[in-house]
Parts: sequence; structure tokens; C-alpha cells
Amino acid sequence: MCGIVGYVGPRNAVQLVFDGLKKLEYRGYDSAGIAAIKNGQVYLEKEKGKLVNLGAKLDQLPSESQLAVGHTRWATHGGPSQVNAHPHQSEGVTIVHNGIIENYDTLKSELKAQGVEFNSDTDTEVIAHVLSQEYAKDSSPQKALLRGIARLNGAYALGVLFSGQADTIFLAKEGSPLVIGVGQDENYFGSDITTFAEVAKQAIFLNDGECASISAKEVRLWDFSGAELKHHYTSINWTPGSAEKHGYRHYMLKEIHEQPSVISHSIEHFLKDGKLNEEALGITKLDLDKIQDINIVACGTAFIAGLLGKYFIEPLTGLPVNVDLASEFRYRNPHMLDEGRTLVIAVSQSGETADTLASLKHAKEAGCQIFSVCNVEYSSIDRISDSTLLMNAGPEIGVASTKAFTSQILCLYLWANAFAKQIGKLSPEQENQMTQELHSLPVHIDLAMNSEDKVKTIINDYYESPNFLYIGRGPSYPIALEGALKLKEISYIHAEGYASGELKHGPIALVDRHMPIVAIAPQDEYHDKSISNIEEVRAREGMVIGIGHDKDDKLQAVCNDVIPCPQVNNPAFQAILSSIPIQFLAYHIAVKRGTDVDQPRNLAKSVTVE
Amino acid sequence: MCGIVGYVGPRNAVQLVFDGLKKLEYRGYDSAGIAAIKNGQVYLEKEKGKLVNLGAKLDQLPSESQLAVGHTRWATHGGPSQVNAHPHQSEGVTIVHNGIIENYDTLKSELKAQGVEFNSDTDTEVIAHVLSQEYAKDSSPQKALLRGIARLNGAYALGVLFSGQADTIFLAKEGSPLVIGVGQDENYFGSDITTFAEVAKQAIFLNDGECASISAKEVRLWDFSGAELKHHYTSINWTPGSAEKHGYRHYMLKEIHEQPSVISHSIEHFLKDGKLNEEALGITKLDLDKIQDINIVACGTAFIAGLLGKYFIEPLTGLPVNVDLASEFRYRNPHMLDEGRTLVIAVSQSGETADTLASLKHAKEAGCQIFSVCNVEYSSIDRISDSTLLMNAGPEIGVASTKAFTSQILCLYLWANAFAKQIGKLSPEQENQMTQELHSLPVHIDLAMNSEDKVKTIINDYYESPNFLYIGRGPSYPIALEGALKLKEISYIHAEGYASGELKHGPIALVDRHMPIVAIAPQDEYHDKSISNIEEVRAREGMVIGIGHDKDDKLQAVCNDVIPCPQVNNPAFQAILSSIPIQFLAYHIAVKRGTDVDQPRNLAKSVTVE
Repeated sequence: MCGIVGYVGPRNAVQLVFDGLKKLEYRGYDSAGIAAIKNGQVYLEKEKGKLVNLGAKLDQLPSESQLAVGHTRWATHGGPSQVNAHPHQSEGVTIVHNGIIENYDTLKSELKAQGVEFNSDTDTEVIAHVLSQEYAKDSSPQKALLRGIARLNGAYALGVLFSGQADTIFLAKEGSPLVIGVGQDENYFGSDITTFAEVAKQAIFLNDGECASISAKEVRLWDFSGAELKHHYTSINWTPGSAEKHGYRHYMLKEIHEQPSVISHSIEHFLKDGKLNEEALGITKLDLDKIQDINIVACGTAFIAGLLGKYFIEPLTGLPVNVDLASEFRYRNPHMLDEGRTLVIAVSQSGETADTLASLKHAKEAGCQIFSVCNVEYSSIDRISDSTLLMNAGPEIGVASTKAFTSQILCLYLWANAFAKQIGKLSPEQENQMTQELHSLPVHIDLAMNSEDKVKTIINDYYESPNFLYIGRGPSYPIALEGALKLKEISYIHAEGYASGELKHGPIALVDRHMPIVAIAPQDEYHDKSISNIEEVRAREGMVIGIGHDKDDKLQAVCNDVIPCPQVNNPAFQAILSSIPIQFLAYHIAVKRGTDVDQPRNLAKSVTVE
Repeated sequence: MCGIVGYVGPRNAVQLVFDGLKKLEYRGYDSAGIAAIKNGQVYLEKEKGKLVNLGAKLDQLPSESQLAVGHTRWATHGGPSQVNAHPHQSEGVTIVHNGIIENYDTLKSELKAQGVEFNSDTDTEVIAHVLSQEYAKDSSPQKALLRGIARLNGAYALGVLFSGQADTIFLAKEGSPLVIGVGQDENYFGSDITTFAEVAKQAIFLNDGECASISAKEVRLWDFSGAELKHHYTSINWTPGSAEKHGYRHYMLKEIHEQPSVISHSIEHFLKDGKLNEEALGITKLDLDKIQDINIVACGTAFIAGLLGKYFIEPLTGLPVNVDLASEFRYRNPHMLDEGRTLVIAVSQSGETADTLASLKHAKEAGCQIFSVCNVEYSSIDRISDSTLLMNAGPEIGVASTKAFTSQILCLYLWANAFAKQIGKLSPEQENQMTQELHSLPVHIDLAMNSEDKVKTIINDYYESPNFLYIGRGPSYPIALEGALKLKEISYIHAEGYASGELKHGPIALVDRHMPIVAIAPQDEYHDKSISNIEEVRAREGMVIGIGHDKDDKLQAVCNDVIPCPQVNNPAFQAILSSIPIQFLAYHIAVKRGTDVDQPRNLAKSVTVE
């Protein structure tokens, strides 16, 4: 799970590759490295930790280089260290790799038996040695690449430098994303288009089973049998979003505070003349009448948005909705109907989540319709879908998702309303009422920002707790899951979310006077039951932080502290509002504990290996 | 969430009620109490903690009493204490109560304003005062009861003694279970039939909205409007199972070791002449052709069995399967089709789980077919279902479910096969192969018992860890959830289960050298991916305990320790086998930590409040 990038052309290749890596740090920040060629010789620098560490060594690479490749790593095989950082080398071969080689241990044993010495614990080093062996046979880079990858099982996007080929980078793709940026007398490659989209206006998205070579003047493609392929260009019309902190201490804090404006923009974008905009919502390209059931597939926070989506989509459309972890869906022989009768919905901020993408391929083969909710145009998931709802939430830099989560909730909800409208299950009156409520949502989100003050005053009592539980009922149940995930990701506190009603089926055994329990309890139809569940916890001396209306006397009476949250009638909008206090809670606890909020340990923004 | 019991007749009422409470301790053990009448006077004893504490005070109650009621408590409102223990009293009224009164705080404020003094923090005491007020008006117990319960919102099974009514117990039921046992010149009531099934052969299961009075010679029933009802008898044919420890230190350990014989008996019971026994599997009473989709509803461990069931039921039947937490399903406006087109499956060991039962009522009103897998005949869930598969696993006493879990897996799997056979999706050859594999399952489970030795040798390195993660892919994912739940319940360690592929979407941030990760990794189709996920964890220095085949060199190479588990081809049977080591792991860690394994803190065997 890594990012790779490369450049060949007349400009400073090292600097361009380093700039490209900055765009890819969302894919991992365990280590980074660059290899550059000058006068036929390969220069290589790599460093453990974030990109800034590599940046300090950049002047040791030749600024006159006109060809370079780079890598930013999320460790899979072998810990984060300099020796495990890419690029990896073997005699005559230098490579950068994104993916996982599943038969690496078998290959490693074979190679060792042949006397090959290994410097790292990575699966990638095996590829370097394999390619080196093949290159030694006939000095043909193209043939060596094809023979080499034939020995690999797994997923890979590869950038390869062969000795004696000082002006060409060789590429191969299977499973992991790889795209070529075509410029004027210069060419690029990268894990996504952000690395070159501001300069190259044409892209070639490699398909699985394709290889390529790029030099300054030429791009060539061929398949794994060696047959030359025609170029398949995509025009890029890319407006880079703002990725500045605007004075906030962390991107995450900035992104939390952006939510009123993100939701405002969404309202402009997804409504037209006060009505649902079916086209922007991705409804028009779907064959709704065929759909008999719906499968949502996603990972992490997007999965939680999907769980919440089920609460709205089932009653609005009258269709059964199943929500699956993508990593399970793709392998578990799931129920799917052909001829477009099952609609598979992918939710993914980046559009590059490997398991989600693989699930869509699987669903496509099974004959399902594919709809996706994602934030990045031209991403792999956008491109594979029959219809995409582009969230327009702007770039999200903090690893812990905030504005993308609330935006996903809103998008799924509006999409379900548009679906219901098209099939005659949403009356004009209902649509009117919903859009009216929607128009006041940004104001309510703005009010929810006030919860930050209360969060700051109470966390002294809680931030040292090694464990937390989060509970909620109905639409507040997924919000409890998200609250726990958020805290876990950035504070390293073991937090776990539960449906309130499940607490007494086991987890309540954990509760004593040392356990903080965050209870999301708006004044909705579940309120009385939620209060009863909080009483059960209090009977075991748990410390309860309620999230609910500040005028809710019942809640105040049973909680140690209440973080105030505005109250609205629409349950989807309430779920968005309840998300704000849990984001602040996670953020301020993490800051208090001194963790790296925007780039927490072990994680990456986008999970591009399975 | 409590158990209530009562007796009126010529024998020693105190002893009979105390014996009845022993049978009900699965419903809670925070406190217990008995009220008995002698010569018109009420004697009352109650004690904090388990029943044994009350037993020590039994001689302070009159052994000549011919009428008594008893209560064993799981605390909901107000902590476990003597003062919060039932029975509760007010002037002229003594009550035992199972359920939750949702408007108790409003009533309490009203009563306090009228000068009523409260002795406890419970919701139940409110009922006593309300009934006392009503009884004072006209001294009619029946009218007082009807007027009193009209003031209550929530769930209740009530046993009430009124002053001046020394030979009669008054009952009312709404939401919580209540059954009358009809004997020869003696009558009983209880939360379930086990309290009297060995002596009374006729039972009257009260419906919601019904009241009753019982004396030695007479049972009367009426509805909440006061209209007299006819008796609705059920004949009881009950064989009490063995509930002895047979030399084991704990019931849980005994129940783990019982699994080979439970599964053997299941094979006898669910096969007939070597073929699937459709009748025992509950297939024959269902209208299979109508079914278009399936909803599984359950709580706790049974929910996890349902999650696993989905992996088998979808491919076998070709129908979409949704698995829902009962506490969510009953409120969330779920997709259901009428005319029996949606089949709702309940999984519940006790058959009394309140949320599951409420979900079934909801589904029945919506016109669904209802099928249940449960272990207790005549239980509320058994009685409401169109068809019941009785597990025949024998009584399970340990609060942490073990043999019931593996039995639920087997029952759901065999049921799905029988379903597939009926609709022509399971060929005779497939049935033959499955039953052959089934016949060797008990032997493999017996072999899995050997994992106990390895567990004992490794736990010294792990048992002090405050946190654990459990991971698995495919059918091993629900087993990971169950492993974490088991450890949580009895050791109070915060353990959490994850699909292996989800780890890097957040929880891997928790991993460092202090975090043990239990990886369930049999040599199935997911094996390579599982090994890759373990590598990712090892790259973050996590300590990995693998559960897999002891000849699995790949697994041995990436784990700190491997607990051996037999390997079979059938994934359902493999899931059952993988369950054994995680049960031993939880059990021995809990014993090492010195917790109360069979009756862990805060829990009850059966959750009979929502």
C-alpha cells in the first residue's frame, strides 16, 4: 500500500518526483525514496519516516537528472525502516512497487538456494532479484519484464529502471493502480493523476495485464503476452482543490470546520431549482426499474456511512439493502443477481480503495449495475462504475475522515430520495419538506461547531482512559461506530462502538468506574430506550458522556457530562449533526495525548492493498 | 432483566420459591429476595449478590408459609445493592418485577411532589407506590392493579401481594414473559416454565395485556379492560437436562468439553437414514417457494452465529440474507415483504431474548414467515414461530455461550442444506458428501480439544494484556468476533474482533509491541490473504497468536505462537473447529485472572429486557 511516481523529460526530475510524492503521501508515510539517473548512473536516496526526512537529503541527488522514480511506503512485509524503503535494487535493476506479492516466500527460498543475498524483509526485493535474473539472460528489458512478472502472484504496479536503458522507465500493472501522464516532450507515471494533473492534460490509465515503457518522446504499451497495444487516452480536466491548513493547527481540524461550507456547496450542487438534481446524484445513468436488491460495499469510515445509508435507503426505496465489508464481499460468494437486477453501491472517498475496487470488478462480472459515491474524479472506482456521484467535498488530507464522512451520509440520503422520487415513492410534498429541512442544515452544522468548547472543558477527565465505549440506537448506532473508529485512529485509545441494545449481551462486562461511555442520544424515537441503556451503564458505575440536546433534562440527569448538539427532525440530518461532537472529541483527546493527528501511526489515507 | 417466581399451595412456599430462583439465576445475579406470607403478615428477606447469599438467610423466613414470591435481579436502574433488591414495598403492597418502566422518572417526580418517600433508586419502587395509591382508593386488588398499570409505560411482568389478600398472588404482563403453572391444589408462576415444569404439567402462558390472580385452588385471567378471559392451557412435556458440573471446575469448561457429544447427538437427531431430516430441521412447516429474501435477527453470540450463517445460506439457497441486531431491527423500519415472502430467522439459545422476541412480533405483523433456532422448548420464541428448529444442545449454564454457539452454526448450516435440497439446489451427491464429512466432525472436534494444552502453556505471555484484537477472513471473521466477545465477557479484557481486511482501515493504529492479535487462519481459500494481513501486523511489532493447522509452516513463520486446530474441507465445519481454541483461550485467561467465569460481573445468561 504505497504510492509510486516517475518522470522522464528535460526538467529537474528529482524535484518533480519529490513534488509528486507529496501528493501521494496519503497512500503511506512509513518511508520514502527516489532513484534518479544521470549519465547512465543510478543515484538513490531513501529514508525512514515521512517525506520530509527524504526532503532533507534531496540535495544528494543530481538536480540535472532527467529521469527519476519515487516511492512512499505503507509497510506490509517488513517493518518501517530505511533498509525496507524503496526503491529496491538488484544487479542491473532498480524498482518501485505498490502492491503485495503473495508467493514472495516461495520465490525468496528459491532465490536464496541459488545464492542470492537479501538486504531487506520486503516482498518487493524479490521482484528486483527476479527481474535481474531475467535481464541477465538476454539483456532485453521488455522480455525480462514479461518473464519476471510471469513468476509473480499478487498485486503490483511496478516502475523499473534497467541498466543500459538510461532514458526509459518500464511499467507493469496487475491489481494496483498505475496511470501515465502524457506531456509535451516529457512523460510521467503515478499511482493517481494528482501527481501530474497540473501539467499533463492526457492520461493513459493502464489496465490489469498491461506493460508500458516511457521515455521523453515516446510511450509504448503491450500486454503480458508481449503484443503491442494501441494507446487509450483519457483527457484530464482537473481543478486541484485547496490543500492548505488556513491557519488551523491540523488538516483534520480545518476539515471539521469546513463541514458547514461543504454541505452548503452540496446543496447548491445536488439541488436544481429547489428540486433534487437527478443527474448530479447519479440517478439518470441507472436502470432503476430493474433493481431488485442493493448491496453496499465499502471499507472503514465509508462502510459506516453505508451502514447508515441502509437505515434510509430501505424505507425510501422499498428494496432490501445489504451492507458488506469490501474485503469480505469480494471473496465470500455473495448473493448477486445478473442483468442489472442487483445494484452494487461502492462508497470510497479516494476512489482507490483496493478491496472496494475488487468488489466492483467481481460485481461487474456477475452482471450487476454499479453505482459509486466518491470524492475523486478519474479515480479507479469512478472509472469502473456505471454511474458515479461525485461528492465535491474537496480534498481531504487528514487521515481520519471527517468532512468526507458527513458528505457521504448526505449524498447517500439525497440519492435515496431521488431514487424514491423516480419510482414514485416520494411525493412532491415530501420532496419539498425534505429540501426545506436541507436548506437549514448548514446553519445547524454551524451551531454544532459550538460543541468544541464543551469538548475542550471536559476532556481532562477522560483523555487518559485506555478504553472507551460508544453506544447509540438507530441512526446513532453507526455514529457510535464512527466515533469509536475516529478515536482509535488518532489517539490510539482502544475505543469500540456498539448498538446500545447489544451492550448487555457481553460488552457491559467491561464497564466499571474507569470506563467512559459516549452515548449518542438525540431526542428521537429511540430516546427513551437510550436513556434506559445509559441507566444500565450507570448502575455499573460507568462514566457517561452524552451527546444530545443541551435542554434534554433526562439526558443531563443520567450523564456525567453532556456535549451539546443541535436537534432536528430529519434523522439523516441529525446523524450528520451528531457526527460533529464525536469528531471534536477524538481530535482534542488526540491533541491532548500528543499524537500525530493528521498522520497517525501505522495508517495511510487510502488503503490500496487488500 | 430479572427472574420472578411464586408459589401458592400447601407446601413450603419459601423453599419452593428459592428452588425456583435457582433455575432463574441465568436472568441475573445482582441480588435476590423473597417475600412470604404467614398468618396474613408479609415476611421479606433480600440480599445483594448471588442467590447463595439469600440462601444463608432463608431460615429467617417462615417455613410454614404457603404463599411466597421471589426475584433475582439484573440491575437496570440503580446499582446492585440490598436496598435496590426486590421485592419492593409500599403501604399495603409487595411486588416483584421484571422489565423496565420508561416513564418512571415522571412518575417519581409526581409521587415525590405528593410526599411519597423513596427507599431505592429503582424504577420498580415507583410501581409499588402507584399500586399502593390505587389500592387505598377502594381496596379492590383487581381494580387497583388495572388502574396502576394504566399509569405505566414500558415492559413488565409483575407479581403483586396486596394486604388483606393473604392467599392470592396478582399478576400482570406486558412485554416481559410470565407463565402460570397449574398444579393439583397448588399453583405457580414464573418467568419461564423451568421453575415448575417438574411438578406442574399444565401451563398458562400469559399474553401481553393480560392479568391474573392465582390462589391454591383457582386461577383467574382478565384483560387490561377488566374483562374476564378463558384459560388457555398448554400441556408441558419437559425433560430437565443435566445441569451438573461432572467434576469440571466450571460449567463453561464442562460445556466446552461437551461439544463432541452435542454434535454427535445432533447428527443422530438431524439425519434420518443418512439423509437430512427435514422435519427435525424445521423445514416442513415453512412455505419455501414463497420466500424471496431472508432476515436473520439475533443478539450477542447468536447474532454472530447468524453472521456466519449468511456465508452458507446465500450460496446454498440463492437468496439474499440480511443479518440484523434484534435491538436495531425492531425499531429501524426494516425491509420486509408480506404474504410470507420474507423469512425472518431468530437465533436464541434461551428463546427468551427480549429484543429478538419483539423483532419476531414485528415481523409477524408485517406478514413474514417466522423460523427460529433455539434451545428451549416452550420458550416465548419457540411459541411465536411458524417453525422451530430445537437445537437439543442440553442446558447451557455458563453465561458465556460455547456449545450453544457451535450448535447454532451446525443447525443453521444443516437447515440451509435441507432448504437447498427442497428447492432443487442440493443434489443427492452433494448431500452425500456433506453428510459423510459431517460424520467425521465429532472426531475432529475431539481432536480440537487437544488445543487446550497449548493454550495453557502460552497464556502466561498474554493474560495480563489489557487489550486484544481478533482477526479472520471469510467464515473465520465471525469466529474472530466470537473470540473477542468470549474474552471480553469472562476476563473483562477489552478484546475486539475485526475482518482481517479492515485492520488497516483504522484499528491497526492500536497495534504496537504490547498488543496481542489472535489470527484465525485455517488453510482455506483465504489463507494467503490472511498471512499477508498477519505480516502487516508484524511489521508494526504486534504479537500474533495464530489459530490454524500445526503443520502450517507459513503460519508458524509469521506468528509468535500457534494454537493447533484440526483442518477439514467443509468451511462450516472448519468454523466450528476454530471455535474450540478461542473458547479455551478465553476460559484459561479468565481463570488466570481470577474472574468469576460462570457468572461474570454485570451480565446475565439471558437478556430479557430491551
